[in-house]
Amino acid sequence: MDLSRISTPEALKQLSSAELNDLCAALRERIITTVSENGGHLASNLGTVELTVALLRAFDIPRDQIVFDVGHQCYTYKLLTGREADFATLRQFGGLSGFPNRGESEADLFTTGHASNAISLATGLIRARQLTGQPGSAIAVLGDGALTGGMSYEALNDAGSSGLPLIVILNDNGMSISSNVGALSRYLTNMRVSKGWIGTKKAVAGGLKRLPLIGGALFSFFEGFKDHIRNIFVHDKFFTSLGFRYLGPIDGHDIPAMEKIFRRAVALREPTLIHVVTQKGHGYAPAENSPDIFHGVPPFYVDSGEYKEETGPEFGRTAAEYLIEQQKRRGDICVVTAAMKDGTGFSVFEEACPGRLFDVGIAEEHAVSMAAGLARGGQRPVCAIYNTFLQRGYDQLLMDVCLQKLPVLFLLDRSGLSGPDGASHHGIFGLSYLTTMPGMRVYCPINAAQLREAMDEALAYDGPAAICYPRRLPMYPALRTAEVKPCARLREGGDAVLLCAGMIAKRGLEAAELLEKQGISLAVFAVSQIRPLDQGVWQDIGTRPCFTLEENVLSGGFGEALCAEAARTGHKAPLACFALPDAFPAHGSRHCLLRQAGLDADTLAEKIQRSLNGGRA
Amino acid sequence: MDLSRISTPEALKQLSSAELNDLCAALRERIITTVSENGGHLASNLGTVELTVALLRAFDIPRDQIVFDVGHQCYTYKLLTGREADFATLRQFGGLSGFPNRGESEADLFTTGHASNAISLATGLIRARQLTGQPGSAIAVLGDGALTGGMSYEALNDAGSSGLPLIVILNDNGMSISSNVGALSRYLTNMRVSKGWIGTKKAVAGGLKRLPLIGGALFSFFEGFKDHIRNIFVHDKFFTSLGFRYLGPIDGHDIPAMEKIFRRAVALREPTLIHVVTQKGHGYAPAENSPDIFHGVPPFYVDSGEYKEETGPEFGRTAAEYLIEQQKRRGDICVVTAAMKDGTGFSVFEEACPGRLFDVGIAEEHAVSMAAGLARGGQRPVCAIYNTFLQRGYDQLLMDVCLQKLPVLFLLDRSGLSGPDGASHHGIFGLSYLTTMPGMRVYCPINAAQLREAMDEALAYDGPAAICYPRRLPMYPALRTAEVKPCARLREGGDAVLLCAGMIAKRGLEAAELLEKQGISLAVFAVSQIRPLDQGVWQDIGTRPCFTLEENVLSGGFGEALCAEAARTGHKAPLACFALPDAFPAHGSRHCLLRQAGLDADTLAEKIQRSLNGGRA
Repeated sequence: MDLSRISTPEALKQLSSAELNDLCAALRERIITTVSENGGHLASNLGTVELTVALLRAFDIPRDQIVFDVGHQCYTYKLLTGREADFATLRQFGGLSGFPNRGESEADLFTTGHASNAISLATGLIRARQLTGQPGSAIAVLGDGALTGGMSYEALNDAGSSGLPLIVILNDNGMSISSNVGALSRYLTNMRVSKGWIGTKKAVAGGLKRLPLIGGALFSFFEGFKDHIRNIFVHDKFFTSLGFRYLGPIDGHDIPAMEKIFRRAVALREPTLIHVVTQKGHGYAPAENSPDIFHGVPPFYVDSGEYKEETGPEFGRTAAEYLIEQQKRRGDICVVTAAMKDGTGFSVFEEACPGRLFDVGIAEEHAVSMAAGLARGGQRPVCAIYNTFLQRGYDQLLMDVCLQKLPVLFLLDRSGLSGPDGASHHGIFGLSYLTTMPGMRVYCPINAAQLREAMDEALAYDGPAAICYPRRLPMYPALRTAEVKPCARLREGGDAVLLCAGMIAKRGLEAAELLEKQGISLAVFAVSQIRPLDQGVWQDIGTRPCFTLEENVLSGGFGEALCAEAARTGHKAPLACFALPDAFPAHGSRHCLLRQAGLDADTLAEKIQRSLNGGRA
Repeated sequence: MDLSRISTPEALKQLSSAELNDLCAALRERIITTVSENGGHLASNLGTVELTVALLRAFDIPRDQIVFDVGHQCYTYKLLTGREADFATLRQFGGLSGFPNRGESEADLFTTGHASNAISLATGLIRARQLTGQPGSAIAVLGDGALTGGMSYEALNDAGSSGLPLIVILNDNGMSISSNVGALSRYLTNMRVSKGWIGTKKAVAGGLKRLPLIGGALFSFFEGFKDHIRNIFVHDKFFTSLGFRYLGPIDGHDIPAMEKIFRRAVALREPTLIHVVTQKGHGYAPAENSPDIFHGVPPFYVDSGEYKEETGPEFGRTAAEYLIEQQKRRGDICVVTAAMKDGTGFSVFEEACPGRLFDVGIAEEHAVSMAAGLARGGQRPVCAIYNTFLQRGYDQLLMDVCLQKLPVLFLLDRSGLSGPDGASHHGIFGLSYLTTMPGMRVYCPINAAQLREAMDEALAYDGPAAICYPRRLPMYPALRTAEVKPCARLREGGDAVLLCAGMIAKRGLEAAELLEKQGISLAVFAVSQIRPLDQGVWQDIGTRPCFTLEENVLSGGFGEALCAEAARTGHKAPLACFALPDAFPAHGSRHCLLRQAGLDADTLAEKIQRSLNGGRA
């Protein structure tokens, strides 16, 4: 089926049942092909093809407003809301975002990426409608993983008690990113089991595996199961306690069944939660078999499911391996993650130190405070969390860790620009907010030796510490071999000094090479200890004019702190602080994003040269 | 009864039933007397006298570990864990904290103040015990208000599924700070109603009102009710869904009943939630009748319950009244609060604009994102939240408001040092984190006219804005009459310039007066527009040396930003930035806290003089 013919919801509504099957197969094919080339979120998007088709047939956008939680499931929605022609640009600089994006289409109400906020956002939308008397529904679509986040519960509690005609669609695939955790997950499983769901699902999945990977015949196999699982609702206790009417569980690959129940929910005009059961990776055997591996993927070969790109050693894995050693020696190390055991590279820790890794689900607030409790109980907890997601625990860091002066070590993975995941996934505020926290030590190591040293120092310090690093260890020789010092000289130079916070030092070195051709000799240092600032830095600078460089917003970051410290200690302030501008960077390759931010080697060299010549950088 | 004899848990365990009644009466008397003199949290502490006695009799601290959520209920605990002799110093500088405090006693496991984290902390404690094989229970005590916070749910979900032998005591008084909100509140009410609890409670309350305010006879009245409400448990659906065994509801003023059930919970060795029903303000008629007014109180007259201190006009109330005007004109203003409708002065808005104020309970994360949804729906939401509590919504501010460029106005009440509430209640990180957020405008008005101007500007701006202010409008004439300008001159002076962020300008003016006596003429400006910084500030400074002053941490605050801006624009950097040091200020009067931080007039004058004479400030 030619998807360009069905690129709007209006066209979608004209299709027959047989045409819908063809459409879903075509959508899957397009998603698999595109993600195999550009990378992206595969398993979650394959699982929600029928769900999205049913949503767009049962509801009328923009009259009805659909908010996707996180947005790991938006590809079909993009393809069916006018973005089919651009879909090949997915996750590329200047192309379509891998998440819902306000700037891209009127159909995307919010630019998303963090979990558990969709019910809150939709609650606001429906209240705005009530205040103005506009018609239409607000629908929040979230995965079962997003339910582990307390925010979802806060919103259910509010919307449920307020009797708002809000429709919450729980897309339950039995996992968040890796296997799901928590009591509620068990509860949902029980509801599925109580209606024979597990058995049905397994049989269906088994059957599909014997079918061609992608094909129109996919759904005919499902037909036989449909009737006995449709509209057989279990008795729910949890959601009804929160003031919601519960409908489900229903088959998330049965479009007519979903359309019917969605329309029924609209008619109810009360808080309604619809429990839809889907299979993550549905329709593509490698993703069905390993939905965790196919959650977020780099480019891969469609036939084998093997990744195309070579992957280098990771900071997180290196940290995990070092902590295994430490645990064997000390006996008091434990690790806390928030649904990111694999992403942070800490699965190996769990294997080596059973019972000492606690994955609390998508619940960063609880993760941070639970770690504080572990520290108060005499353990040495290490929280391994993506830089951007630790933002959720900001207050808990301040109140439950720093105020208590507790020795909790935070490992902030994916620090700096995250690349193709875009605005919501960059870790670019960490240096700013971590350095405001009383007693918090902050490190930015650039190689494995510096990482181990930072961990040693943090573990020897009786207070909180944070180590920020990007995903991968450097390949660049000057970084790999950099000395283990708070401020390590990467390159000598007599005309000026560039102080770099962490891994972006590579761009600094490239800029120095360009400047050398202009006859300017720039010394480059990598500052791995951001706070407290090592006062030896002033000697390193000496009398030379200096600049700072960081992959963080300017405000409150490394450069500003150095300016203030210069004023305080009577040293000469940096001539210019190079940092990310006051905006959210988009998605795309690191190279493109750094160039857009003016932090590429060419622009840096040019600005430094202009500044040394007396102009403003 | 002489409380000094019963100031440890050991002594407590020796008391007979009759002596316990006397003890509780004596505890209440001491609490009422002390709070009437020092101010403090009254109603919640009066409601938990028997609960705390029962806790300390049923459990053995420090073997068993008790964590109070928020800490509005810790006074009896302090009196019975070795702090009776110092109780008169409650909330005074250098005296006992009004919240649990690690530095004060081994019995306080954490320094607390923010809500909904106790279950997380206790989960960490019990895990640490399991890892080391130590015996003992971990007990989290939280109010029903703290259950509206999603963090509580995240922790229940984790602890429940992990089968941890954690004991959660839900102190249900049917309200958080003002009347409670949310579906779960209704659910708890239903459980009480289903066992005739409401009727019983009303009858008891009515009876107590006829008794002397404080007296040993208080509990004999209760006796008749005890038997038929003890151990009659309702069927719970919510907590059992989360993996907890539910016991309750039980009478929170019946010590033997509570002791019995606490011991039973220990024996169960599984996640257990005990639903205890208490009366807020119990035993003091004015507080029973108006528990919201007697939640947190200034000094008051015991006989009448009237406040002693004169109270001046408040920023929050002024903002609310202005927004009522704006709403009448515009029709699109709505207000979101998080259980602080009264504290923020916004009750008047709800009365004047019915249906346009949304109190979502202690759920700042949801509050911020729900406001984003309202803004996306075309409304102009205003979030009125205490500065310190907005920290909970840090990620939501970034992701759901700033990333979307949505016009949500945040009013940060209680900005700066909060005084006797202490470490957890100061609003001293706001300027740092708000100014890192892309597109966020930040204001610090110092009088009503500046406040209205800031609100006008914020409402005219198509993006997010934050206005920070302390509780009360200034009495100081130079502040009250200050011009409505981004940088308002409060005092002329030829020798140097002091730029003050907001209300702390008063100390700047006092320092200027002291310096005048030393022959130094200091100009003082109040900067009310922190971000974007008005570039006219450089003309205001001219060629004079300059200093900055703020009631915020140094890192990332106004002073550092000015240093960086000076470096960027080629202006002379401030000679010194006066700000709060890298530590959490304690509790006490503003005067004492500012002096401790070196921000009192004497110290400021001395440092400025020294700096102008060529020394380091």
